Amino acid sequence: MELAEVARRLELESLYTEYAAALGADRLEDWPEFFTDDCHYRVTSAENYDSGLPLGLIYATSKNMLRDRVSALREANVYEPQRYRHLISGIRLTHPSAPPPLAGEGGVGAAEALDLEANFLVVRTMQDGGMILFAVGRYVDRAVRTDAGWKFASKIVVLDGRQIDTLLAIPI
Amino acid sequence: MELAEVARRLELESLYTEYAAALGADRLEDWPEFFTDDCHYRVTSAENYDSGLPLGLIYATSKNMLRDRVSALREANVYEPQRYRHLISGIRLTHPSAPPPLAGEGGVGAAEALDLEANFLVVRTMQDGGMILFAVGRYVDRAVRTDAGWKFASKIVVLDGRQIDTLLAIPI
Amino acid sequence: MELAEVARRLELESLYTEYAAALGADRLEDWPEFFTDDCHYRVTSAENYDSGLPLGLIYATSKNMLRDRVSALREANVYEPQRYRHLISGIRLTHPSAPPPLAGEGGVGAAEALDLEANFLVVRTMQDGGMILFAVGRYVDRAVRTDAGWKFASKIVVLDGRQIDTLLAIPI
Repeated sequence: MELAEVARRLELESLYTEYAAALGADRLEDWPEFFTDDCHYRVTSAENYDSGLPLGLIYATSKNMLRDRVSALREANVYEPQRYRHLISGIRLTHPSAPPPLAGEGGVGAAEALDLEANFLVVRTMQDGGMILFAVGRYVDRAVRTDAGWKFASKIVVLDGRQIDTLLAIPI
Repeated sequence: MELAEVARRLELESLYTEYAAALGADRLEDWPEFFTDDCHYRVTSAENYDSGLPLGLIYATSKNMLRDRVSALREANVYEPQRYRHLISGIRLTHPSAPPPLAGEGGVGAAEALDLEANFLVVRTMQDGGMILFAVGRYVDRAVRTDAGWKFASKIVVLDGRQIDTLLAIPI
Repeated sequence: MELAEVARRLELESLYTEYAAALGADRLEDWPEFFTDDCHYRVTSAENYDSGLPLGLIYATSKNMLRDRVSALREANVYEPQRYRHLISGIRLTHPSAPPPLAGEGGVGAAEALDLEANFLVVRTMQDGGMILFAVGRYVDRAVRTDAGWKFASKIVVLDGRQIDTLLAIPI
């Protein structure tokens, strides 16, 4: 293993770590900044994902759609402060030998792109201190290296459960 | 810290990451492949482990026994799809200065062997979307470097709880 | 990224990993040893922390105070064996460009100091095997490099919940 590969792994870990920190601190406005402009973001169930069904409850195809979602959440959730703590582990390259660039990423000489997966667990804490397991599953992601560091070109949130609570309209 | 040591740490992290990913994806048939042929695998309680009691509910002394267990699970669990998400963290060398090889591993010149521990948390998701803490505890492991990469020569699953549910017959 | 930076990140990860392992194994007497002599340790709620309120239910300003707390816990908790499993993830430098040394740490030429945050989840297992989410939140820490390795000069345990159970008198 070369130092460059080690560095890349740590950089990718940082991408997830900063992502989890932003959501844990309710910095929702920072959330779209983890994505590329023409990103794909989706929340779906494992059952739907395994069946190849393309749609989920939440579906966005650009950073601007993510920003719209954040605005909608800010307008809607004015009363009950809740906290969502993300624990992410098991980050792994599923396509370690650099895959070809995504369509739209620019062809030869374009950004380095990597397919990744990771496990996540989200705990919701209500204001009375009660804690519940809110969501658990895995991320199926594509990250690309941009001038501003690694970004998610695609993030599919695959929930282990079949049912998707409407509360899952929050970023996972 | 030398680059070789850094690389080894990342390789060992990958061992756990791939292990968790296989179990999370219900790829049970891949599970025995994380072990050496003459591996030791055991699930026990912290109380039994601390008392030095050697036996657990689940006890295997070869990769073939692990394969048999998987076959049995596949035959038994035909109806209720459940998902088990493993979050593993805190991987640490408990024997950082390479310990002597295991008996059966070949003596001088044999595979590099390392003692490791890690914390795990397993969340079970039922088909209705309900999630429960299924198991929590630590792994007490020995990993050896083989021609096919790092494998578990020994894995003791030490559950924090005293009681072991029969459902724990699934790989942890 | 230089090898020295990679090594430092892995060393800091080890600090958290050993910390979690000590608490998970009920080695409370080892707990104060993760701190500097004049450390600051505090458990507080996110609400209090965000409001800038300095006090928490638990407040210590030296390693000796941590030792006193451990002694008190050992005297009080003689009956019910419980286990607390810490899962720590998302360790990140919040002050990556080495901040100035802490007052009391010695000025120019003093120990290297770093500001860090990490997410934690603590699961409590009762003797009957029942598991509950005991605490979730983030650490807001300062670590300094000493002759005996990295130590916490400051650790603020910021719980996501508002209420702090008296049981939280245990180290988190």
